[in-house]
Amino acid sequence: MPHLYDFDQGDWTDRGLLGGKGAGLAEMTHLGLPVPPGFTITTEVCRHAMKTGELPADLWDEVDAAVSRLEEKSGRSFGGGGEAPLLLSVRSGAKFSMPGMMDTVLNIGVNDEVVEELIAWSGDPHFAWDVYRRFIQMYGDVVLGIEESRFQGVLTMLRARSGVQSDADLSAADLQRATYEFKAIVEEHRPGQLPSDPTEQLRGAVEAVFKSWTNKRAIDYRRIHDIPDDLGTAANVQMMVFGDLGEDSGTGVCFTRDPSSGARVYYGDYLPRAQGEDVVSGARNTLSLDALKDLHPDCHAELIGYMDRLEENYRDMMDIEFTIEKGKLFILQSRVGKRTPAAAVRIAVAIANEGTISKEEALLRVDPETLEQLHRPRVSPDTDAVPIATGVDASPGAAVGQICFSSDDAVRIAAEGKDVILVRPETTPDDIHGMAAAVGILTSQGGKTSHAAVVARGMGKPAVTGAAALTVDPEGGVVLVAGRELRAGDTITLDGTAGKVYVGEVDLVAPEPLPELLTLLEWADEVRQLGVRANADTPEDAAEARKRGAQGIGLARTEHMFMGERLQIVQRVILARSPVERQRALEQLETQQVDDFEAILEAMDGLPVVVRLLDPPLHEFLPSRLELEQEALRRVRSGRPIDELRDMSDQVARWEEDNPMLGLRGVRLGLVLPDLYRMQARAAINAICRRLDAGGNPHLEIMIPLVSTVEELRRMRAMIEKEIVEARERTGHDLEVPIGTMIELPRAALTADEIASVADFFSFGTNDLTQMTYGLSRDDAERLFLHQYVEEGILKADPFQTIDRQGVGRLVEVACKEGRAANPDLQLGVCGEHGGDARSIEFFSEVGLDYVSCSTFRVEGARLAAAQVAIRGVETSDTR
Amino acid sequence: MPHLYDFDQGDWTDRGLLGGKGAGLAEMTHLGLPVPPGFTITTEVCRHAMKTGELPADLWDEVDAAVSRLEEKSGRSFGGGGEAPLLLSVRSGAKFSMPGMMDTVLNIGVNDEVVEELIAWSGDPHFAWDVYRRFIQMYGDVVLGIEESRFQGVLTMLRARSGVQSDADLSAADLQRATYEFKAIVEEHRPGQLPSDPTEQLRGAVEAVFKSWTNKRAIDYRRIHDIPDDLGTAANVQMMVFGDLGEDSGTGVCFTRDPSSGARVYYGDYLPRAQGEDVVSGARNTLSLDALKDLHPDCHAELIGYMDRLEENYRDMMDIEFTIEKGKLFILQSRVGKRTPAAAVRIAVAIANEGTISKEEALLRVDPETLEQLHRPRVSPDTDAVPIATGVDASPGAAVGQICFSSDDAVRIAAEGKDVILVRPETTPDDIHGMAAAVGILTSQGGKTSHAAVVARGMGKPAVTGAAALTVDPEGGVVLVAGRELRAGDTITLDGTAGKVYVGEVDLVAPEPLPELLTLLEWADEVRQLGVRANADTPEDAAEARKRGAQGIGLARTEHMFMGERLQIVQRVILARSPVERQRALEQLETQQVDDFEAILEAMDGLPVVVRLLDPPLHEFLPSRLELEQEALRRVRSGRPIDELRDMSDQVARWEEDNPMLGLRGVRLGLVLPDLYRMQARAAINAICRRLDAGGNPHLEIMIPLVSTVEELRRMRAMIEKEIVEARERTGHDLEVPIGTMIELPRAALTADEIASVADFFSFGTNDLTQMTYGLSRDDAERLFLHQYVEEGILKADPFQTIDRQGVGRLVEVACKEGRAANPDLQLGVCGEHGGDARSIEFFSEVGLDYVSCSTFRVEGARLAAAQVAIRGVETSDTR
Repeated sequence: MPHLYDFDQGDWTDRGLLGGKGAGLAEMTHLGLPVPPGFTITTEVCRHAMKTGELPADLWDEVDAAVSRLEEKSGRSFGGGGEAPLLLSVRSGAKFSMPGMMDTVLNIGVNDEVVEELIAWSGDPHFAWDVYRRFIQMYGDVVLGIEESRFQGVLTMLRARSGVQSDADLSAADLQRATYEFKAIVEEHRPGQLPSDPTEQLRGAVEAVFKSWTNKRAIDYRRIHDIPDDLGTAANVQMMVFGDLGEDSGTGVCFTRDPSSGARVYYGDYLPRAQGEDVVSGARNTLSLDALKDLHPDCHAELIGYMDRLEENYRDMMDIEFTIEKGKLFILQSRVGKRTPAAAVRIAVAIANEGTISKEEALLRVDPETLEQLHRPRVSPDTDAVPIATGVDASPGAAVGQICFSSDDAVRIAAEGKDVILVRPETTPDDIHGMAAAVGILTSQGGKTSHAAVVARGMGKPAVTGAAALTVDPEGGVVLVAGRELRAGDTITLDGTAGKVYVGEVDLVAPEPLPELLTLLEWADEVRQLGVRANADTPEDAAEARKRGAQGIGLARTEHMFMGERLQIVQRVILARSPVERQRALEQLETQQVDDFEAILEAMDGLPVVVRLLDPPLHEFLPSRLELEQEALRRVRSGRPIDELRDMSDQVARWEEDNPMLGLRGVRLGLVLPDLYRMQARAAINAICRRLDAGGNPHLEIMIPLVSTVEELRRMRAMIEKEIVEARERTGHDLEVPIGTMIELPRAALTADEIASVADFFSFGTNDLTQMTYGLSRDDAERLFLHQYVEEGILKADPFQTIDRQGVGRLVEVACKEGRAANPDLQLGVCGEHGGDARSIEFFSEVGLDYVSCSTFRVEGARLAAAQVAIRGVETSDTR
Repeated sequence: MPHLYDFDQGDWTDRGLLGGKGAGLAEMTHLGLPVPPGFTITTEVCRHAMKTGELPADLWDEVDAAVSRLEEKSGRSFGGGGEAPLLLSVRSGAKFSMPGMMDTVLNIGVNDEVVEELIAWSGDPHFAWDVYRRFIQMYGDVVLGIEESRFQGVLTMLRARSGVQSDADLSAADLQRATYEFKAIVEEHRPGQLPSDPTEQLRGAVEAVFKSWTNKRAIDYRRIHDIPDDLGTAANVQMMVFGDLGEDSGTGVCFTRDPSSGARVYYGDYLPRAQGEDVVSGARNTLSLDALKDLHPDCHAELIGYMDRLEENYRDMMDIEFTIEKGKLFILQSRVGKRTPAAAVRIAVAIANEGTISKEEALLRVDPETLEQLHRPRVSPDTDAVPIATGVDASPGAAVGQICFSSDDAVRIAAEGKDVILVRPETTPDDIHGMAAAVGILTSQGGKTSHAAVVARGMGKPAVTGAAALTVDPEGGVVLVAGRELRAGDTITLDGTAGKVYVGEVDLVAPEPLPELLTLLEWADEVRQLGVRANADTPEDAAEARKRGAQGIGLARTEHMFMGERLQIVQRVILARSPVERQRALEQLETQQVDDFEAILEAMDGLPVVVRLLDPPLHEFLPSRLELEQEALRRVRSGRPIDELRDMSDQVARWEEDNPMLGLRGVRLGLVLPDLYRMQARAAINAICRRLDAGGNPHLEIMIPLVSTVEELRRMRAMIEKEIVEARERTGHDLEVPIGTMIELPRAALTADEIASVADFFSFGTNDLTQMTYGLSRDDAERLFLHQYVEEGILKADPFQTIDRQGVGRLVEVACKEGRAANPDLQLGVCGEHGGDARSIEFFSEVGLDYVSCSTFRVEGARLAAAQVAIRGVETSDTR
């Protein structure tokens, strides 16, 4: 097999071999677009190098031959000596796009002789020296590993001396001077390693580009985006064309639709007299496509034609890089364009409505995980507030809150009901609790893959990272920015979508409703088989979930109904010194529970509502002895009595557990204090009766948590059925209340056949099931080591986000199969957080669940994910 | 099918139908022994009654016919009117012996008329009235449920009035008087319910005996001894013969060998002029068999003949009840005799050596769980100390310690290194920690199935329960006994084997070595396939384990080596503020660890020693914040500074976990603090080298705990192998160190194929595996609800004692199968506490483990259990 293919020779459908960029260049060449000629060294070469530690011995002969063909096609000469000198670029390009993660070297082929030929050919010494100094700068950085800042220092000095703002404004002499300085820098750090021979330059660049596949940035990116490490990258060698060759040259980027709104408009940026990097870096202000039309009407018309042709060919919104060299248009690159979540939805629906793609294809084009961002507030477009700093748009959405410098403070102040924004130089796993308590996260360091960014996106919180203009001093309790001092408690506004930071409270607006989203989700509902319910504990949540298309509630957690002022009553139930005391407390709770359930049933009228009886570890309801002791110490120091605390501490000690997660929870508490579950069952039944009396259509199901042995469920079922029979006789209502259980302990999964014989439904509690299967507590592990495990690749992914198919998934599979075999009418669902995770939804569909249940904000994503699974399933069976 | 069988008709091999006692009576009748005639109502009748709530309608016709046949055989008349009156007994008798658990009614058939006939027949009014009053007493108690104490009250009064000690010394007139008083008592409590019609008496008694199958005592007994509830009991109706019919009558119990020592001697007790209950109750002093020889030489010779015939027939030591009525010998009952663990061993070996049974059968006759009792100390037989109280011999062995009235005190004082005996009216699940800390348990209430008895036996601690002579007042801190006051701190001695309590320290002696035990275990080693190793953490333990036949150490826990004064060094490792500080602490530990390992390897020279790297939950090594706060409060109150405590508390907080069992343990700690495991691996390797240098034969294996994903093991293995390679190069020793892992998390079992690919061995940590599979912490659950779960039958057995085959066992099975498939050389063992449990050993053998590893004191039992499994396995495949 050849090691490389010319753009007009390669099989553009083989992205695995040519990489995405290489395949694109081959396809565009095939489409007749004016692509500067070049060739692609295949990913196979990269894989070979990863395996053996070196490039294939015969690679360079093929490269030399390919360069000769390039000289022929272009009429230019590599290394000079012809009509015009041929300069080359080397760019990485993997099967899956990894923008900005790997390396590029431009202007290969220039040296002390060629620069003179360039001056002669272009008549522009400024251009020629700029080409030369850029080459040394990139080669020094990318191939030789010399810090970029050293070169920048020289430029800064020259700009200062000439009193100009931009490198482009430096004189030819200054650029020549820069070139010499750069050579000196390289010679100092890597003596003798800057080749003047163009062929050697090319080899060095190709090697460096292949090596960049395994740099840390690229590895991290692949980990986050689940790209296998063994694919390798291709290297694309291409003739340089120059956008900086005088006023009739320039470079630009354009999109076939607006990547931000998704609107059907030609959208782009053009920068006269510039190389591509200048556009992307944002260092100079760009012109619009309309301005290009005025400057180069022919090129503009030609470009519009190519844009149409590319969108037609790829049937999607395209992102295109182009250069105009002395009035001639070149297309350098095109790829399916990145877009905002809103644009993704609008474009997918629009292209489907235009008839170019099917509804199914439209559904597959939107990432389900991004849908919840459509509901996040954003900074009002009408604001006249000026951002005080700009950083990385690490996690979308906007938030207003007061500055907090430590995670402990964040938790404390948030507990007072205030919105806080956690501001840190960077975050570490120690900050998880603070991040969870904050409404937004701001850091001065780190990019899109930093800890703060990754965790914030996981938590669905707005974040701006790497806002380098800030100097954050947590110990001093101050942020210095643009000559101002911000202190703890000061209010700021974050715009995570745009990466901007404002002082004070800036108006936020709810996002515009997106009619295309409704259309897309309707299409999703047409094809999906998997039901989608929501986890919701309040009538408000239930109503919101219904609005977002939930087909019921898969998990209503009653413990959340016992917090706040009811907590004391619950404590009385547990710590009661007499049955009478306990009974009185239970009666109080029962009245309130009936109201709770009735309101939720009303909000979900006609749809199923699964009520889970009390589950939490005991210590969540009881005061902490540590805190009681700390309070005692405070009281003693201020001379107050502590007898009452002592009393409470003694009572709590009776129930204290070393490992509450593995203690008296769920059905165990229900068996030890049977009146508690009886009260809840009675309240649920009464709520149903009230709804029936009111002409409603309630579908309540009762779920028993933490069952490990069938006998637990059998006894609870008998107790609840007794209550149902009594209520039936008392009210005359024909009550049907399905009774089922969580499957959240390995033993429940392993004995699912027995348990299924007394259950109407299973709901997999994959959070706890994951905890028990791995033997780790999520909270402790996240604080102490889980991040390190994922970081170092000991775990491929956080098993609490995406289900672990091998271990936890195997238990789910066994339970589904054996449960259904024992009870064919068994309903199967999942209510762990995995229920809202697209990759997990794929698994749940495979094992045959009836529905997933997830947080309200993930319901729409789950509907879409379920549709995608259905479509992929059909595709798979079609193509087999 | 008939509802009953006469003793000379029934199929004595059908114990399921006739019950053990009924089958025995039939068999003895068949053997030609002088068994009083009778018949057995089958267990089928009992099962019918359990199902339908009533006895079969046609039962009584069959009973009436059988009674007629009895009259014919005996020449006596039921209800009188013939030559002599026929009286009957009704006794329960289930398939499996449940001694004393169900009811018996004697002397059925006596009434106001028959008593006169009895006087005439016996010429002994004392006898006749005694028969009558006994009948009313038993019928009142058993059939009518009147409290026994009411009747006893009358007898006490009569004895006092006559100034006699024993009921037997009451005059005939007094017994007649007692009869009338008893009738009055019955009339008062259950008017009209004492039938004078003998047939009705018989029916009442039969019904009551069947009903006693479901009394609480019997149900509890079955739960403990794993006897199914649905077997039912038979009822044996038999002619009464009278040992109390004058001086030429009497009753006795004899054994074909000494049930206490196992010696080959005829052993028995005889009581002239008495009914059977008098012998068993121990209320009167009995005579020896030699005395019987003098009194009734013919009967004695006849009895010895029957004893031989019975032992020959049953090929085991027999327990025989007999009665002499007017010089004629009757055999009432015989069964395989209960015996002490030592006697069980001696008898089994002796009978096998006599050629009566095979070695295999001898091995099956000894309960492996009892072997460890042979090593427990006992009260010196030479002691002249007089017990101050006698109670139930609830758990064998002897102990000396100081009295403690609360479990918290027991824990506190035991922590000071003192031996304590927990003294309570009774124990509850709240006392588990106190029982664990104590060397012995003494209660004033409860029998052999009380909480104290069951838990003490489980823990292998001596216990005396139900010592009713004690008045225990924990609040007052005093025990009143025999006019003395004992207080907390006073020393007492318990003899759990004999159920005796002594004041002060009584000499204890180590048990005599039992040569037959060595023989039996040699036989066991000949047949067993399963290896037996010990869990041992010290050289002393290792030596003791070796002495008891352990074939290596299956688990040496290194965390136990880090307690005591080394704890502070470990804390420095964890809390170190700098790498240097940590390194220094690690170096200190390494020196000590090398010595630890070397000593154990020396003790186990030539045998494998599996060293588990550090595993415990972090909080076991760190001070508790609660305790630090409590200490702070104490210091503040006494005006001392607390800064240092504050500091420590802050440091500990960093590592604090809500659920340490699910936290930073085992390999996780090894990955987060890699120097820790590296230090341990290095120490192990150095210890091997030192042993090799000394000409030893070390076989150390390194075990990584708490692996949940193959990657953890792979990294640790790479790290350890690097150390091995370095040591190999440094020392020139050809080191071979197998590296394996615990399988103690469900995920490890579920992904055993992957893990096996990088493991040389698996050792199942069934304690943790059970915790995770059930999602319960053993400590918390035992304190808060596990006892209730077992008590109420929610769990059939404590899954921490006997492996849960369905759930935990299924994971073990999967891991064995898939692990071996992936790595055929994989060694498989178990080191959880289940490794010493006979029923679990059966399971481990079935799934194909290579060895079990258990506490030293259970090694001998495990050897025997493994032999039994091998024998039963052969039997099973033979009979299939």
